[in-house]
Amino acid sequence: MYAGERLAEFVAMSNWEAVPERVRHEGKRSLLNFLGCALGVAHTPPIEMALRVLSPLSGENRVTVLGRKERLDPLGAAFINAVGGNLLDYDDTHLRTVIHPSAPVAPAALALAEQRGLSGAAMLHAFILGAEVECRIGNAVSPGHYARGWHITSTCGVFGAAAAAAKLLGLDAIQTWHALGIAASQSAGIIENLPSAAKNVSVGNAARNGLFAALLAEQGYTAAPAAIEGPLGWGRAMGDEPAVGEIIDGLGERWELLSNTYKPYPCGIVMHSVIDACLELRQQVAPDEIARVVISGEQLLLDRGDRPVANERDARVSIHHCAAVAFLFGAAGLEEFSEAAVHDPAVVVLRAKTEARVDAASPRGAATAEVFTHDGRHLRSTVLHAKGSKERPLSDEEIEVKVRQQAAIARIDDVIAAVWRIDTLADVGTLLCASY
Amino acid sequence: MYAGERLAEFVAMSNWEAVPERVRHEGKRSLLNFLGCALGVAHTPPIEMALRVLSPLSGENRVTVLGRKERLDPLGAAFINAVGGNLLDYDDTHLRTVIHPSAPVAPAALALAEQRGLSGAAMLHAFILGAEVECRIGNAVSPGHYARGWHITSTCGVFGAAAAAAKLLGLDAIQTWHALGIAASQSAGIIENLPSAAKNVSVGNAARNGLFAALLAEQGYTAAPAAIEGPLGWGRAMGDEPAVGEIIDGLGERWELLSNTYKPYPCGIVMHSVIDACLELRQQVAPDEIARVVISGEQLLLDRGDRPVANERDARVSIHHCAAVAFLFGAAGLEEFSEAAVHDPAVVVLRAKTEARVDAASPRGAATAEVFTHDGRHLRSTVLHAKGSKERPLSDEEIEVKVRQQAAIARIDDVIAAVWRIDTLADVGTLLCASY
Repeated sequence: MYAGERLAEFVAMSNWEAVPERVRHEGKRSLLNFLGCALGVAHTPPIEMALRVLSPLSGENRVTVLGRKERLDPLGAAFINAVGGNLLDYDDTHLRTVIHPSAPVAPAALALAEQRGLSGAAMLHAFILGAEVECRIGNAVSPGHYARGWHITSTCGVFGAAAAAAKLLGLDAIQTWHALGIAASQSAGIIENLPSAAKNVSVGNAARNGLFAALLAEQGYTAAPAAIEGPLGWGRAMGDEPAVGEIIDGLGERWELLSNTYKPYPCGIVMHSVIDACLELRQQVAPDEIARVVISGEQLLLDRGDRPVANERDARVSIHHCAAVAFLFGAAGLEEFSEAAVHDPAVVVLRAKTEARVDAASPRGAATAEVFTHDGRHLRSTVLHAKGSKERPLSDEEIEVKVRQQAAIARIDDVIAAVWRIDTLADVGTLLCASY
Repeated sequence: MYAGERLAEFVAMSNWEAVPERVRHEGKRSLLNFLGCALGVAHTPPIEMALRVLSPLSGENRVTVLGRKERLDPLGAAFINAVGGNLLDYDDTHLRTVIHPSAPVAPAALALAEQRGLSGAAMLHAFILGAEVECRIGNAVSPGHYARGWHITSTCGVFGAAAAAAKLLGLDAIQTWHALGIAASQSAGIIENLPSAAKNVSVGNAARNGLFAALLAEQGYTAAPAAIEGPLGWGRAMGDEPAVGEIIDGLGERWELLSNTYKPYPCGIVMHSVIDACLELRQQVAPDEIARVVISGEQLLLDRGDRPVANERDARVSIHHCAAVAFLFGAAGLEEFSEAAVHDPAVVVLRAKTEARVDAASPRGAATAEVFTHDGRHLRSTVLHAKGSKERPLSDEEIEVKVRQQAAIARIDDVIAAVWRIDTLADVGTLLCASY
């Protein structure tokens, strides 16, 4: 059986009743975290610019652009909402693949469900299935795929968006199979472009093109049977022979969304243990007592985080900045990664007092913080699993706190309440009309 | 200097006056050939289906969908016109890369020029530059790119469309560089999907997304400097370290469009020598005299063309069908590859009398036809270069004949006349309003 065929059968046949309660709940957590991310950046330049391009080209049947008064056709709205969801890399992470699962899938499902007046349960169901498809295809090509230069959230996200849209359109298994195959011909996005707005384009396209694939399949467009794993198919062209078993084994038994994680801090995920270790030590030392800070961890931590800091973007992947704000402010939220924080004299001084060192014995994901005080004390804290990791997941309340911080809009309480009861909403528009 | 930077500088700085006359003329030939292809399929199912998806989503500022009364926003029109241009693989071919240069580039340029009321010369200039960019990037990764499973018309076409649109928008060199980099994050399309409508999606997207890249760059979207050739950039992710010299050397001196070729027959290009050889022998033998036909050529010819024939699609890549219709009808046009021709009893019989053989000594692109007659005669003809190859190009008149055959619409003479004088049209709409 072809990978796409089996996935399509699973998606088309899936009953909401058969989706376990904890998977449904994880779906709500993912969705809430996504909405916070997208609402929080709704008035930033990348969203404004994309709206200026797409608004004049958008037709009728317009749906919600999160956090905006403007509305767009479903393809355009899917694009912009996906850009917003992933813009700050503050969204969810499926750690095995480093896919941000929600940003490409939720916008496709939301746009289509709103346009067609579908229920919240139908939307949530489609979203969960889309995330499953996207992460399984990612598993089948990881870790080579990302290492080779593919932005896996974009390249695999398009399959998830196609699956979610196919489910909402009520496509049968064959049409869904075609939708997934059409997605394979639209899969794109490169790592080289991550530090630029071109990254947003591939993430937005993943949502937009996945939805487009399903709409085309609904009208009769087709794809090759082995579009995913064939000799001249998606996986091999991209550099890997996909491990088909990862895609098709245990469908409906093992759920990838249960491995989803949410970031408590808006910075590189490998910095999170650094922040936690420093927050722990802060209880024992005041900033002006600190003579020197030493942060140690595996080579990967240094590769990602040992760099000069000139702006917000650098700060989000700087060991030194993360340590400095944790000690100074006891927090590492949006404000602590703003331009103001980057140039705050106290932060500049404490960054300069911080040193990063490789500890070859440090396990993946761990970090150690050491503080040497002016009066000769030496403090030390090691964090093995950061807050927000799979081992120490954020609670529902912690996700709410994060969302409230991101999306300082009047009706955020309504949004949060609507997400927790989305499976009871007759029309997903009820959720979305609360969102601006 | 980065590849994208140099290409962008070339595109932004190019003056129409510096484009040699024979390059301009080849641009017109390419454009005319493209229009014939797109007009000829304007009422086929793949176009109808895509229109059903895109029409309700399309906003104002609508432009021409070739051969249709409906109009679409420029992104939607670019998509559909590119699908039409390449639908039957009857469009132009840049043989070194096997790129069909016009289908992704011309629709982006036409849609934008029409929407903004730009001149025919501006459109032709942008089209020529786009084709140059697309084929040079293709040269830099050929032949590995196609062999690995990438549909090069789609994957490189998006760069050409971005370049053409950037020129028409009047973007400066830096913005054009960003547009090309954004295109790199949208490059997609796989060979596995070639026998399906999913191929049309990647070709349509190449035009649509190239235009989108330029529109986003105009608003301020950026890309990484080395998006094309960087360590985690487009070329390496797709499997090749691009030969940057192929991209940047001799810009403005050597023009890739001068290597463009046009198909006289709507079938696989390696079949064309077979048809020519049979047409030559036909002058010496009537179909009912034929006892046996033997076609021989290199292994590639057999790999592509030795197969059973059940439908139109098979017929287009069948040695046996091409030989049969050439002998029976003295022609190999659209009618000779129709379902009716596939099932015509005389064709079925002559296909069965035809044998394909490898001749290891046969040069690339050549074919030999031999006929054994009932009365014991043995005829033989070898064609080294097919009609329409770079060595035996179609004349302007032969392209006109082809276009008239494809596009049996009332005002085709106006379209043809408008293309030959496009560089004098104040508004490209003059050409397009003649096209339905």
